[in-house]
Amino acid sequence: MAKVATRYLETHPTKLIEKGFHPDRNMVSESLFALANEYCGVRAFFEEGSSLPSLIGTYYNGIIEKALEDTPNAYKGIVKRGHFTINSINFLKVRIEIDGEVLDLGKSKIQDFERILDMDDGLLVRRFTWLVGDNGVEITFRRLLSMTRPEVAYQSISFIAKKAAHLNISFELDGTILHWGNHCYWDRGSEFTKDNRAYVYETTPTTNQSLLSLMEIQSSWQPKSSETEEKRAIIHYSGDLEAGKAVEFERFVSNIAGKKRLSEEQSLAKAKPALEKACRDGFAQLLLENSNFFAESYQKSLIEIDGDPADQQGIRFCLFHLIQTYHGLEEDNNIGAKGLTGEAYSGHAFWDSETYCLPYYLFSDKKIAKNLLLFRYHTLEQAKARAKDLDCVGACYPIATRNGEEACALWQHASTQIQPTSAVGYAIQHYMTLYEDDAFMRDYGFEMLLEISKFLYSRGQWNQHHTAFGYYGVMGPDEFQVMVNHNTYTNLMGKKIIEYTLGLIDDSKYRNESLLCKAGYNDELIRDMRTACGAMRILYDEKTKLFEQHDGFYDLPHIDVDAIPPEEFPLYSHWSYDRIYRNDMIKQPDVLMFLFLYNQDFSDEIIRANYEFYEPRCIHESSLSPSIHSILAEQIGKEDEALSFFGFATRLDLDDYNRNTCEGLHMTSIAAAWMNIVYGFLGLRSERTILKINPRLPSRWNSYRVTLHYREATLSVEVRKDQLILHSDKPVQLYVGNELLHLDGEKTFLR
Amino acid sequence: MAKVATRYLETHPTKLIEKGFHPDRNMVSESLFALANEYCGVRAFFEEGSSLPSLIGTYYNGIIEKALEDTPNAYKGIVKRGHFTINSINFLKVRIEIDGEVLDLGKSKIQDFERILDMDDGLLVRRFTWLVGDNGVEITFRRLLSMTRPEVAYQSISFIAKKAAHLNISFELDGTILHWGNHCYWDRGSEFTKDNRAYVYETTPTTNQSLLSLMEIQSSWQPKSSETEEKRAIIHYSGDLEAGKAVEFERFVSNIAGKKRLSEEQSLAKAKPALEKACRDGFAQLLLENSNFFAESYQKSLIEIDGDPADQQGIRFCLFHLIQTYHGLEEDNNIGAKGLTGEAYSGHAFWDSETYCLPYYLFSDKKIAKNLLLFRYHTLEQAKARAKDLDCVGACYPIATRNGEEACALWQHASTQIQPTSAVGYAIQHYMTLYEDDAFMRDYGFEMLLEISKFLYSRGQWNQHHTAFGYYGVMGPDEFQVMVNHNTYTNLMGKKIIEYTLGLIDDSKYRNESLLCKAGYNDELIRDMRTACGAMRILYDEKTKLFEQHDGFYDLPHIDVDAIPPEEFPLYSHWSYDRIYRNDMIKQPDVLMFLFLYNQDFSDEIIRANYEFYEPRCIHESSLSPSIHSILAEQIGKEDEALSFFGFATRLDLDDYNRNTCEGLHMTSIAAAWMNIVYGFLGLRSERTILKINPRLPSRWNSYRVTLHYREATLSVEVRKDQLILHSDKPVQLYVGNELLHLDGEKTFLR
Repeated sequence: MAKVATRYLETHPTKLIEKGFHPDRNMVSESLFALANEYCGVRAFFEEGSSLPSLIGTYYNGIIEKALEDTPNAYKGIVKRGHFTINSINFLKVRIEIDGEVLDLGKSKIQDFERILDMDDGLLVRRFTWLVGDNGVEITFRRLLSMTRPEVAYQSISFIAKKAAHLNISFELDGTILHWGNHCYWDRGSEFTKDNRAYVYETTPTTNQSLLSLMEIQSSWQPKSSETEEKRAIIHYSGDLEAGKAVEFERFVSNIAGKKRLSEEQSLAKAKPALEKACRDGFAQLLLENSNFFAESYQKSLIEIDGDPADQQGIRFCLFHLIQTYHGLEEDNNIGAKGLTGEAYSGHAFWDSETYCLPYYLFSDKKIAKNLLLFRYHTLEQAKARAKDLDCVGACYPIATRNGEEACALWQHASTQIQPTSAVGYAIQHYMTLYEDDAFMRDYGFEMLLEISKFLYSRGQWNQHHTAFGYYGVMGPDEFQVMVNHNTYTNLMGKKIIEYTLGLIDDSKYRNESLLCKAGYNDELIRDMRTACGAMRILYDEKTKLFEQHDGFYDLPHIDVDAIPPEEFPLYSHWSYDRIYRNDMIKQPDVLMFLFLYNQDFSDEIIRANYEFYEPRCIHESSLSPSIHSILAEQIGKEDEALSFFGFATRLDLDDYNRNTCEGLHMTSIAAAWMNIVYGFLGLRSERTILKINPRLPSRWNSYRVTLHYREATLSVEVRKDQLILHSDKPVQLYVGNELLHLDGEKTFLR
Repeated sequence: MAKVATRYLETHPTKLIEKGFHPDRNMVSESLFALANEYCGVRAFFEEGSSLPSLIGTYYNGIIEKALEDTPNAYKGIVKRGHFTINSINFLKVRIEIDGEVLDLGKSKIQDFERILDMDDGLLVRRFTWLVGDNGVEITFRRLLSMTRPEVAYQSISFIAKKAAHLNISFELDGTILHWGNHCYWDRGSEFTKDNRAYVYETTPTTNQSLLSLMEIQSSWQPKSSETEEKRAIIHYSGDLEAGKAVEFERFVSNIAGKKRLSEEQSLAKAKPALEKACRDGFAQLLLENSNFFAESYQKSLIEIDGDPADQQGIRFCLFHLIQTYHGLEEDNNIGAKGLTGEAYSGHAFWDSETYCLPYYLFSDKKIAKNLLLFRYHTLEQAKARAKDLDCVGACYPIATRNGEEACALWQHASTQIQPTSAVGYAIQHYMTLYEDDAFMRDYGFEMLLEISKFLYSRGQWNQHHTAFGYYGVMGPDEFQVMVNHNTYTNLMGKKIIEYTLGLIDDSKYRNESLLCKAGYNDELIRDMRTACGAMRILYDEKTKLFEQHDGFYDLPHIDVDAIPPEEFPLYSHWSYDRIYRNDMIKQPDVLMFLFLYNQDFSDEIIRANYEFYEPRCIHESSLSPSIHSILAEQIGKEDEALSFFGFATRLDLDDYNRNTCEGLHMTSIAAAWMNIVYGFLGLRSERTILKINPRLPSRWNSYRVTLHYREATLSVEVRKDQLILHSDKPVQLYVGNELLHLDGEKTFLR
């Protein structure tokens, strides 16, 4: 299906720039210009509010509530009440009135509108001239979330009027915000104002959490009055703007989110010193810290593209939002499918975190990658409870979660998709391959793998005549095949992860009798697991080199996916639900997915055969699908296809290809765009001990450079039309194509 | 799993008798003693109310409302808002106070409690002595729904006090009743009282229906006062009971249910004459009419059992409730799974109506059987809309419905179970085989079959290589196998029904060009349908004589169902939802179901092989399952098993084997009990032109007699230990075993 770009921002290598106001793109802009610092995220809504369509969204990582009602027909194993990240206190809210007119960009007359997000420091600036009567008032908004002081946010609003005018401005903390536009999930705590300070404190009704937003307004003006209402605190200023003279208001905010509820006093004890330090240090210092933070992050892992400014801007946009959303701040954070930029997908993390996001972090910072894995360690108990709920043992990781519990109420996904669990196993293996972090394995990894593998074994079943083992009644990565048996992805990943675990058990470096005992492993279980792995049914035909996606896939009615009229997409909206599931059409890579994950286990011939069989059957109705296809197409020399699948990867949101950027950014697709370049064009392969690259230059670029944090080194690869320039600041080994290279410093190859 | 009888009623051939009050069985009694006349049903709740657990339930056939909220994730083809039969005005409500004490059988002291339902006339009598202080007041309640005047109900309450006492008694129409205990689905219309008359009129908010209950109280006493409140109307009496002198109150009620809303005036215009005639004619006449009605029904179709009083009472109980629930009163009525005796299953009719209930009516009254089929004719448009909703053409009949629209919000059932549609086709064929009703076929049947077969063809698919046709992504009758391909039941029924339709198209007696044109049939479609039927995949192995339940069933992991601990039943409550679906365990007959429906197409050898393969895999977690097994076991000479499966069939509710009779009666299991005797022990086979019987006598009976209305004749078969006595009042042909018999009058065989 043809996707169409809607490009309304300027092209710039490191900035997002909106010149002239685009009211019809208001909600898209709210997502694109969103700020986050992992701890907190705010959409780029107008602080003064407006009558335009808008999602006033403020979210905290890990602050969640539960559904108000039970799922109907919640049989055993079906989620009874899901949880989700909730919209929280709007700490940026203002009301601006000049000469009796209230500012509302949906109605007010403005000119020279400009909005700029600098991706080198995360400062968001918006300015325009407001035409009030015959006056013109230039207003500039600045907004920043501190990357180094997670609880600190900053806002400034400055006014320069052509002629004298009267200004009323109110700064509010608004805790009445509705989630999904229909319910405020916060219980009232308390409100307070005094002079230029105010706070609102609230608690969650069922999850025992809290939030306190404390603000201080700084200005040459004095507050006129202040007030509190239920869940709201407001400070009013009123005065005259002199012609041509700037008046500025700065708001420093300290937000204390209690994932485990903090009392009002406890919250204040944290909020006050943070606020006071921020006020003392001032905006310039906060901005400098942000600038240093981003510079350091980009230094470790960066992609720079020459020859296609749109791609360059696109990939920087991806990196910026990846860093904003997650950089390993807390061990119990994760990456929501929409980051902290909207309510769609409920703030849930999926197996995308391990499969699509982890690689970027692996090559960015060992600590961050480890942190992402620790989320799964800290939610091991929930995963064990979930396995029990499914009448299995060990640990079953959820398909969608924020707190470690399964949150997806659709049984056909939550009860039958095994890949989140095998993905955690794969992620541990991937991390260990790159970092050989024995301490991690001993402290966390081994225990997780024991429970993961126990689940993978217990969910599997022997066939009728006990000749083959595998998974019955599953949905593989491809969500268009429901309740199938012997999905090859699921079987193969199960076998791989269990065998990896059994290998560790045999390895004296990791073997830990007390953990084995705790996880209920004994010789009999180990023998049974080994037997099952040996008998795992892998539907492979040596003659055709094809893996059958699941038992019976080849017999399914055929659909020519190219013949489906474009207006029938997305199929979930236009096709009867059951009809989607009874053809050989697939939604996203399934066989191709394990050919990517364990790439070097398979010959190019196998990859070519399966690519050519499955790609024509795939409709890519997941934003994660094209990148995997692009990577494999590149590998087998289908460069045009690779480039075509890469197509809009870096600009999926920037150009709103999916028509839903208004709801929030596609964070995991953003990570997939990084993978597409690094595993695709650069040809990186990282699942074996020695890294491999096989760089190619997409025809539409002049050159590109990829910087990777690899073990202790910073490795950079510059791919030019005629040269390949490698550099490492420490000695590293890697394959370039099939040639093993010992790199220390720079090395140039002619192409 | 062992089922345990809880028997607390007296055993009597034609009556239900409760001697001594069983407060712990209160809700079970409310179901067992329930009255209905197809138009209306009332549970046997105490009219005076009580503090005991109780479901005050009054239901009207076809009076429905819709769910208050949308189904979550209602993708295309998934029911957005289901409908259900709603609890309605309680027209029997009274309040009884004697000497300041209010009657409440949960608290009051009583003795000599007796409750009797006479299954020969449908009169429910309850009497007991209420000990009030040192007084004893004998109270007798009588209740009747007229079988001949559907809108008329009757109640009488009489008092005889040992000593003088003061009685306050109020008669109420209560329209505030809550459905599912939590919401009144009725909008207020109006209320009225004057002298000894009152009415309440209400309307439904979304389905545009109405109900008016008009009552008149007759007594030697004069009303003291009356009042109305919102949705309620009450008439109060107050006076002194003289020692030993009976005082009686009679309430005549006329209930006008408007399936299409009637105004208050229109309703009154119908209610008043009916009420006045009932008052004029009086109770004795109403009772006589009922008595005649039941006598006539039993005369046409009856089972009498000698030698097992419990079975005799059980089968009479079944027949009584079948007649009460449905006797062809209106063409748009159907048979809810719980009749009109509760709220479970939402008043919905399932494919049970055609598959389990129709046979009884076929052998009871042609008009009733035809009427049951006409429900499907009158809901053909809804079935066509449903097919469209599922991206198919033709008519798809719903898995659960009251108004013809699909009401089941579980996609895994509603979107994938094809058998309701093929069951309607089968029912038409069955009716035609018995009655050769050409007018019916021309006026209704042909059109239905054209649409049914079009759907069955359009829902089917060709396999990948276009070598076989069949159904993908279906659930067969066995609800433990989800989203399977080539379910043999579904494929075979599809083939049979399409081929039956193609035969009719070729038959000049029925062929109707304008209907063919209307249904979009042309030569090409007909040819394609024929080709598809020819290629229909039927998974049969000539060597083993086994049909595979679906493609891949033989490879499924095996479960020894006998090893499942009894406390794990019902599995839906104790097993993870997905776990139920990935074994070779089945819930109910699937292959055995079509071996029953098209029984004479298959040899005993085939039936034996499949019975022996599938029965051990079946857990009978449907109350409809044992009867089919019993019938086939009998056929292949497994008489002990047949008797064991018959076991509690006639007394499933009477002895509360499933522990949920409190929620209402299992109407379709009641019909299955009839089938169990007639198709099982009597060995009736009726799917071919000439009837066949093959009578056997269960060892625990002395003899039994089955009366069947067959074509124009009344055919009776008495099976004794030593004799078989056949009688027909008109000449009929039938096979007795393999011998063709021309029967006219009586014929006796020695056994």
